[in-house]
Amino acid sequence: MDNLYVIKIGGNVIDNSENLHYFLNDFASLKGYKVLVHGGGKIATDLSHTLGVEPKMVEGRRITDIETLRVVTMVYAGLINKNIVAQLQRYQCNAIGLTGADANLIRATKRPVKEIDYGFVGDLSETSVEKNTLSKLLETGLIPVFPAITHDGEGQLLNTNADTIASAIAVALSHLYKVSLVYCFEKKGVLKDVDDEASVISSISSSGFETLKGDGIIAGGMLPKLHNAFQAIKSGVNEVYIGKSDELPLLNDHLFGTRLFA
Amino acid sequence: MDNLYVIKIGGNVIDNSENLHYFLNDFASLKGYKVLVHGGGKIATDLSHTLGVEPKMVEGRRITDIETLRVVTMVYAGLINKNIVAQLQRYQCNAIGLTGADANLIRATKRPVKEIDYGFVGDLSETSVEKNTLSKLLETGLIPVFPAITHDGEGQLLNTNADTIASAIAVALSHLYKVSLVYCFEKKGVLKDVDDEASVISSISSSGFETLKGDGIIAGGMLPKLHNAFQAIKSGVNEVYIGKSDELPLLNDHLFGTRLFA
Repeated sequence: MDNLYVIKIGGNVIDNSENLHYFLNDFASLKGYKVLVHGGGKIATDLSHTLGVEPKMVEGRRITDIETLRVVTMVYAGLINKNIVAQLQRYQCNAIGLTGADANLIRATKRPVKEIDYGFVGDLSETSVEKNTLSKLLETGLIPVFPAITHDGEGQLLNTNADTIASAIAVALSHLYKVSLVYCFEKKGVLKDVDDEASVISSISSSGFETLKGDGIIAGGMLPKLHNAFQAIKSGVNEVYIGKSDELPLLNDHLFGTRLFA
Repeated sequence: MDNLYVIKIGGNVIDNSENLHYFLNDFASLKGYKVLVHGGGKIATDLSHTLGVEPKMVEGRRITDIETLRVVTMVYAGLINKNIVAQLQRYQCNAIGLTGADANLIRATKRPVKEIDYGFVGDLSETSVEKNTLSKLLETGLIPVFPAITHDGEGQLLNTNADTIASAIAVALSHLYKVSLVYCFEKKGVLKDVDDEASVISSISSSGFETLKGDGIIAGGMLPKLHNAFQAIKSGVNEVYIGKSDELPLLNDHLFGTRLFA
């Protein structure tokens, strides 16, 4: 099986044009099959504000109403995605920007209304990703770049969390490739001491995770992140990395951030 | 050689959601290889206005400044393109939305500044379209949908006229397919009498065009349209149709609008 990287970047990379520039250069240099998934960042928030589309919150949860969906479709799938693709082309990386609607690559289900109506948010299942079409594009030498937009197959675009998209793609393609799923976030990795950037834990096994959890070393916002990562590993992903975008070149030597494995 | 349709729609189809709905349903039903190219329409103008980006005109020509480019990238490549793709998917048409930057499919050159600086406008040449990659996507069963956005290969997105994109794609693919280029506009075809919608000329040969021009029957805005169409035919396109989007099903019997041929 060939190696494949599925790399997710978020707002902290996209909002800073210098960070983004360096990241895309490093991403272009990365050898082998790869997929990029990107979140949104402040541009969408700023545009919403300018257009008078105020963020809707219900019980602390963000709601994607029809106006917000219009904004994220414009910003994520249009402005950000196409500028990333154009930059990657500049670095001789044959990128192709794709929402879940394109080539029916990621079909989601509008989240059912229970206590909260989340609006136009799409949830993914095990069969959401069209792995054969995606693999054909990869085999053609193309580098797919996904924004956080999917569709329901009935003509409706939906907003799906970028972490979730990255994980679903990684799991689906793990039947065809040896997949490394890479999450870039604001820290250099999983820290032993949250106040010490030098305390990155280099690798964590699934049993090690249970110990670290039990000892209270991993807590708070890192818990769901790692839980989802180990879920992806259980579902077939070879390994998950969590680290900082500007250290991407270290991936070649498996020294990027924290490596999670079975 | 297999048949291929390259169909261009403009603002008059996109601005009316009912027209667009019917058109996309008809487009989905059209048999064989096909490519859709779409213009912008009022949505971009409206968004520009809301954002305080006023249309820049110099000597009656529209200028694409950096702010306008941002707006058209959001609206054409994001909002309109992805909604068209999602609708086509609903009709079982495996559409894939692609700017010229995606897979480096259409590389343009920023228009040189002479008397007028047109801004971020991209001109095309004979080698602009990556016909081999485009053909691979078609052979995979995908239906490419292009907005009026290209790139320069150096990281810069550019705005390129949708008619020009349709023509360039048609000419490039005429080496691999028997291409019918179809322009949808507000009339049912080329009219003998501009005030009589029933006076559609069913077909015009290149020599017939010279006669109609000499007799003053074809004049004004139709002249450059037809001139460009016959240029495409000279460059290898099999035939060009000009007509109204709601009559698209007539294409199957070659009865759509006016047919132009060598």
